[in-house]
Amino acid sequence: MMKRQNEHWLLPEGIDELLPPQAEQVEQLRRQLLDLYHSWGYQLVMPPLVEYVESLLTGTGADLDLKTFKLTDQLSGRMMGLRADMTPQVARIDAHKLCSDKPSRLCYIGNVLWTRPDGFGGSRSPLQVGAELFGHDGVASDVEVLTLMLETLKAAGLPRIHFDLGHVGIYRGLVEQAGISSEDEMVLFDALQRKALPEIESLIAELELDSDMADMLLALPSLSGDISTLDDAKNRLAKASPEVKAALENLEQIATAIASRVSEASVHIDIAELRAYHYQTGIVFAAFAPGSGTEIARGGRYNDIGRAFGRARPATGFSTDLRVLSELGSVQQAQQPTRILAPWGEDAELLALVNSLRQEGRIVIQELPGQDVDMVAMECGEVIRKTDAGWRVEKGN
Amino acid sequence: MMKRQNEHWLLPEGIDELLPPQAEQVEQLRRQLLDLYHSWGYQLVMPPLVEYVESLLTGTGADLDLKTFKLTDQLSGRMMGLRADMTPQVARIDAHKLCSDKPSRLCYIGNVLWTRPDGFGGSRSPLQVGAELFGHDGVASDVEVLTLMLETLKAAGLPRIHFDLGHVGIYRGLVEQAGISSEDEMVLFDALQRKALPEIESLIAELELDSDMADMLLALPSLSGDISTLDDAKNRLAKASPEVKAALENLEQIATAIASRVSEASVHIDIAELRAYHYQTGIVFAAFAPGSGTEIARGGRYNDIGRAFGRARPATGFSTDLRVLSELGSVQQAQQPTRILAPWGEDAELLALVNSLRQEGRIVIQELPGQDVDMVAMECGEVIRKTDAGWRVEKGN
Repeated sequence: MMKRQNEHWLLPEGIDELLPPQAEQVEQLRRQLLDLYHSWGYQLVMPPLVEYVESLLTGTGADLDLKTFKLTDQLSGRMMGLRADMTPQVARIDAHKLCSDKPSRLCYIGNVLWTRPDGFGGSRSPLQVGAELFGHDGVASDVEVLTLMLETLKAAGLPRIHFDLGHVGIYRGLVEQAGISSEDEMVLFDALQRKALPEIESLIAELELDSDMADMLLALPSLSGDISTLDDAKNRLAKASPEVKAALENLEQIATAIASRVSEASVHIDIAELRAYHYQTGIVFAAFAPGSGTEIARGGRYNDIGRAFGRARPATGFSTDLRVLSELGSVQQAQQPTRILAPWGEDAELLALVNSLRQEGRIVIQELPGQDVDMVAMECGEVIRKTDAGWRVEKGN
Repeated sequence: MMKRQNEHWLLPEGIDELLPPQAEQVEQLRRQLLDLYHSWGYQLVMPPLVEYVESLLTGTGADLDLKTFKLTDQLSGRMMGLRADMTPQVARIDAHKLCSDKPSRLCYIGNVLWTRPDGFGGSRSPLQVGAELFGHDGVASDVEVLTLMLETLKAAGLPRIHFDLGHVGIYRGLVEQAGISSEDEMVLFDALQRKALPEIESLIAELELDSDMADMLLALPSLSGDISTLDDAKNRLAKASPEVKAALENLEQIATAIASRVSEASVHIDIAELRAYHYQTGIVFAAFAPGSGTEIARGGRYNDIGRAFGRARPATGFSTDLRVLSELGSVQQAQQPTRILAPWGEDAELLALVNSLRQEGRIVIQELPGQDVDMVAMECGEVIRKTDAGWRVEKGN
């Protein structure tokens, strides 16, 4: 620990920086993704890094509050938060800034910061990128954003992706049908998340539900698998309320549409998949890195988020971490032409040649007087030399 | 003030967000500038949003400390700062991460945050963009970064720019020659910054300097004007030390080289121009918005910054605020083709057409069932319809 005192340059745990050439790769992928969203009609917004906590956290859960760094605003004396998630910011923008009653499609990219790492990667500084569709409630908008998430992963060089698909309306509807208190609901929810079967069984036994109801709740953890799981679910939840059946039907329509649109991705239906349960209102989905099983993107429907801002609009969207995608993906880097070394000088013809090469997209480095020229270290394959015919680009050395 | 409590969505003073279409314009300019720096051989780095304060503020002045929001790191218990300037971060990266003894050229872009607004614009959340050249001390590297700053402004649609050019070595050399204490130096510096002539006169009288020395210091505020000011300065500072004369000579070489390289920009020599005096070690420059006189970009040589990290390298660079450039500039937006409306559906041929149009860079919006279609509001000029010959793009309405 003594050593650390002298190492001013050590970064805090989970706080990363990107150096060349990784930064360049992230920038390339950033452009590809924003161009993709643009071509789907998603408009870019740039929400601020900090907002008052009321604005940043209203309508979101306690999880996000604990993940958010707080700052005192010297100008107003009020508390500000450093954004830990851009989704609520984009919902606020849809609710208050754009004021459209038509569907609006928005996308965003930016750094977020967490007080503690979330999950296995250990990062506290994701580069969040995502897209949200506001103002339409139905299968079509969910299919659109889920397809766009899968296209995002494909663009990042991750075409054969596994994703989980669930619907919070199923659990929520069953709980309502069973008349379970919100306190018991949370305990059961927690056990379901962990798929802790003995615990789930004893909790349900304690609730003294009728046997059909108990069977349906007990079935949830096992309703997980390929698309045929939906048939199982319909059988095992046959005595559920119309709300639960509508949620199942909604899930099936979306799963079927996705299967016909994105053949490369494989869907895993998980009826007990309840990520961000407090926040979501319809389908929920999460995509996983090939092999490792780490979650790399997530999303779903969250119709209530705008209500806190006085304008509840249907909403569905997804987000992911651009830096994780860039690390995991295998985007083919286009072969770059070599860099060109130019001599130092103010000669107008030399400078004109340098300018025109740069405008063509070539990299031209002008030599600095006194500098040891090492063409290999400088990654220069060509050089500008003065010939009888004027300044010319020639092969190096 | 009662009202504010209900206006959760109000942003803190000086904290801005960008909506469509401004966000899109900023993104376009961002790409243009990063492509420009890339073509000059500057490599992109992405420093973190937060660092330990020792790392973020070591070697920088008290100004930056007061501008920096502080956060407690829950994981380590140590104090972190939210970056208020990316330049020291880039210097740390050059000193410790890249470890090259050759010149290195780095560029960066990112949000920074200030506790209080700086200057007239009132923003506390600039989108800082800049470039730094490490490892070369001399006219050539200063000329390169100053030219690149002027190219940056040109790319932003601000070609006819005025900029101030000075050299901190002149004042610093005179102060040393006169044997002025560092306390008096600061008082005099402060008065010079404000060009408070009577105050400067009485301060110099108090110091009881010999008359040549006093005359030279008194001359500083008036040594300001076009490039001919350099001749005045040589006359009025004829009795100055060799260090002062070398600084003047350095300034002249740079001013002359810039004049021959960038004909559109007009230079204003200001011998008493001492922006970031504590930080800079050679030339200093600042560019101003046409008309308003607001500073929009600044830079200079700051050779000592890496020393705090154990590796002092020569350094010169500039930075600016991309959002200010985007607001002030007049970049021609390329005429966009109209957006295309596609019907909802899973028809494979329809989806293939939509995909290929999007890959060509066209914007295709898929209709959402139940949505009122308003081609004008949706900014769609074309529509995909099923014809006898299959799906076709046709002019809308």
